[in-house]
Amino acid sequence: MTVAPQLLPVAAARTARADRLSSWMRHKGLDHLLLTAPDQIRYATDYRAQLVSESTDWYAAVVDADGEAEIFVPFTDHVMERPEPAVDRLRRLHPAPSWAPAACQPRQWVTGLSVVLRARGARRVGFDVLDAALLHDLWTDLPRLSFLPCAAELFTLRAVKDDSEIQLIDIACRINTAALDKAVQAAQPGMRDHDLLAVAAEHQHSLGAEFLTHSVCNIRKGSGSWFADGAPLREGEPFFLDTGCHGPGGYASDAARTGFLGEPPPAVSRAWSHLLTAYEEGRNAARPGVRCSTVHDTMNAYLLRHDLPPTPYGTGHGVGLRCCELPSVNAATRMDTDDTLRVGHVIALEPETAVEVEGRLMVLKIEDNFAVTPSGLRCLTRATTSDDSAP
Amino acid sequence: MTVAPQLLPVAAARTARADRLSSWMRHKGLDHLLLTAPDQIRYATDYRAQLVSESTDWYAAVVDADGEAEIFVPFTDHVMERPEPAVDRLRRLHPAPSWAPAACQPRQWVTGLSVVLRARGARRVGFDVLDAALLHDLWTDLPRLSFLPCAAELFTLRAVKDDSEIQLIDIACRINTAALDKAVQAAQPGMRDHDLLAVAAEHQHSLGAEFLTHSVCNIRKGSGSWFADGAPLREGEPFFLDTGCHGPGGYASDAARTGFLGEPPPAVSRAWSHLLTAYEEGRNAARPGVRCSTVHDTMNAYLLRHDLPPTPYGTGHGVGLRCCELPSVNAATRMDTDDTLRVGHVIALEPETAVEVEGRLMVLKIEDNFAVTPSGLRCLTRATTSDDSAP
Repeated sequence: MTVAPQLLPVAAARTARADRLSSWMRHKGLDHLLLTAPDQIRYATDYRAQLVSESTDWYAAVVDADGEAEIFVPFTDHVMERPEPAVDRLRRLHPAPSWAPAACQPRQWVTGLSVVLRARGARRVGFDVLDAALLHDLWTDLPRLSFLPCAAELFTLRAVKDDSEIQLIDIACRINTAALDKAVQAAQPGMRDHDLLAVAAEHQHSLGAEFLTHSVCNIRKGSGSWFADGAPLREGEPFFLDTGCHGPGGYASDAARTGFLGEPPPAVSRAWSHLLTAYEEGRNAARPGVRCSTVHDTMNAYLLRHDLPPTPYGTGHGVGLRCCELPSVNAATRMDTDDTLRVGHVIALEPETAVEVEGRLMVLKIEDNFAVTPSGLRCLTRATTSDDSAP
Repeated sequence: MTVAPQLLPVAAARTARADRLSSWMRHKGLDHLLLTAPDQIRYATDYRAQLVSESTDWYAAVVDADGEAEIFVPFTDHVMERPEPAVDRLRRLHPAPSWAPAACQPRQWVTGLSVVLRARGARRVGFDVLDAALLHDLWTDLPRLSFLPCAAELFTLRAVKDDSEIQLIDIACRINTAALDKAVQAAQPGMRDHDLLAVAAEHQHSLGAEFLTHSVCNIRKGSGSWFADGAPLREGEPFFLDTGCHGPGGYASDAARTGFLGEPPPAVSRAWSHLLTAYEEGRNAARPGVRCSTVHDTMNAYLLRHDLPPTPYGTGHGVGLRCCELPSVNAATRMDTDDTLRVGHVIALEPETAVEVEGRLMVLKIEDNFAVTPSGLRCLTRATTSDDSAP
């Protein structure tokens, strides 16, 4: 499963992203970007800033329209010139305050960023996420610069993937699905939710995941109550796992599997069978030119027609350098934009339903990741063993 | 290891935090807070919003000075009144756009938040993190409200912990340390960095961790190059692991262990022994009333006196509902504020040094978590087996 680094299309993905970003910056008249979210930094520079789940503002990249980057990092006490000879456009690393949210060290950050933005002659700077007080101070320090929020546009730009990006997502999906399958296969009565997540996490790491994004397990809890709490598995009951990780290269996978211990009650089997059919109808509906809400409505309408509760949240989302990005797949009334599916989108679909048996609610869920191709969806996550009919 | 939920001081921690926050809000003249970071939401409401590593803005809590809260969540299609009967002050949950950064759905968010803020008669609202475009739209929608950035002040407020909070950190530390020790003990020549992280993650989950925050492993790489890449362990070489997790209740632990396979070269043994002494001097220096920079300088000065490279980044940080919060322990020139240690602070100390043997750089590191008590530090993470003298 572990893919030799030289076989990963990382350089191709880096070039494709840099070209797309550069065109967009020129079109917007931006001479620099100031990025702090690890996935935005990765997109623009390929630099890995997801050190910890909470390192959402420990790094900052200043990137120009040629893709040349200077990055603030928390682990050095001196400027490092051309730290990665193989990455030509990564000019230098600067020391940043270590191990605290950026909001806690505004003067350190404003001083460092101002020096670099001034030295580069920045004028119109797009940014993704900045603490409001820090942004205010930066603006005060650099009154001749324009700072323009552009997180939403960056996510829009990222929604359509290059083939190399889809290959990297595919590798993350293979890791994540294999880990999920191992956990479902390991399930035995008496094991706890924590034990299943342990199996999944162990395999995500040993198969070469870069970063574990989430691992939830639902045993006898309602929708939204996805957190393991020591619940033991019992014969005849379903459970589901929803896990995610970044593969080598930083791209994500986000998938879910329902498992059964022994023979479930007939009402559960019926609901599960209907969920799979609803899912199949949603997958078949999803093709280029179709609105995301149509895919969502197709799955939920099928569930409702069969007297099952519909998914009480969005049934899908884009997958890329985040587990969850654009396009959103939800009811039209729940989205700012009801996007049209396009070739190159990569989406997760994740319908859910529930059934009450002897006063106990049992939630059923499935989630795979798909590339949108001219002829429809191509599954990037292997089918669950309980669903041999899935693509 | 798994602690029975009824034995966790979660309710005590919730009350202590709510009281502290309430006093602070009244002192600041804030009638509401608008919080989106999972740890800030947890602090103010005890509600768990860390669903995925990237769910940093999928939830939003509106909290008044009595601690009464309404929370936007991504997993429901309808308003849920009093969703947790045991949590009196959690009034209702509202549907929020699912599975996308908030910046991608500004109208959905602004509409939802405006309705709630208006209905509650909010006037002066402190906020932690909001997308700049979304904040602009919210302000336009609610021109009579004041929105005041307060992330930095919230982190300052959080730095001193109640005893119940320290107990919860202690539980997270026991989980994290046991997982680290298992991984170090499992190390064998030929195993890869990924395999060690697999052992650690498996144990974090099976011991009841809520959420895995990070897992890095350094084998024959420089400082800052902490990411597993398939490197195999070799006889006579050191390696280090740095892992973190949230325990039950949401509090974090962040620790690191260096391991050795067989007998390391004399230069490595010497450097390791000096690192442990530097660490001991830092620990002994750390007591109430001492500046954080003094602790930092003590450790690095010792390393420099013994011709070893000092830690090239901050040697410590607070630990709480984030792995890394205030106070920062760094050089005075690298911090906005050189805090004085106080009873109730919980800190990580993490000195590092390196030694070159036959042209290969070997990085050595150790990290534990400590509560600051009147008489000095109390270790919350068990000593590494290689350091029996540690507290």
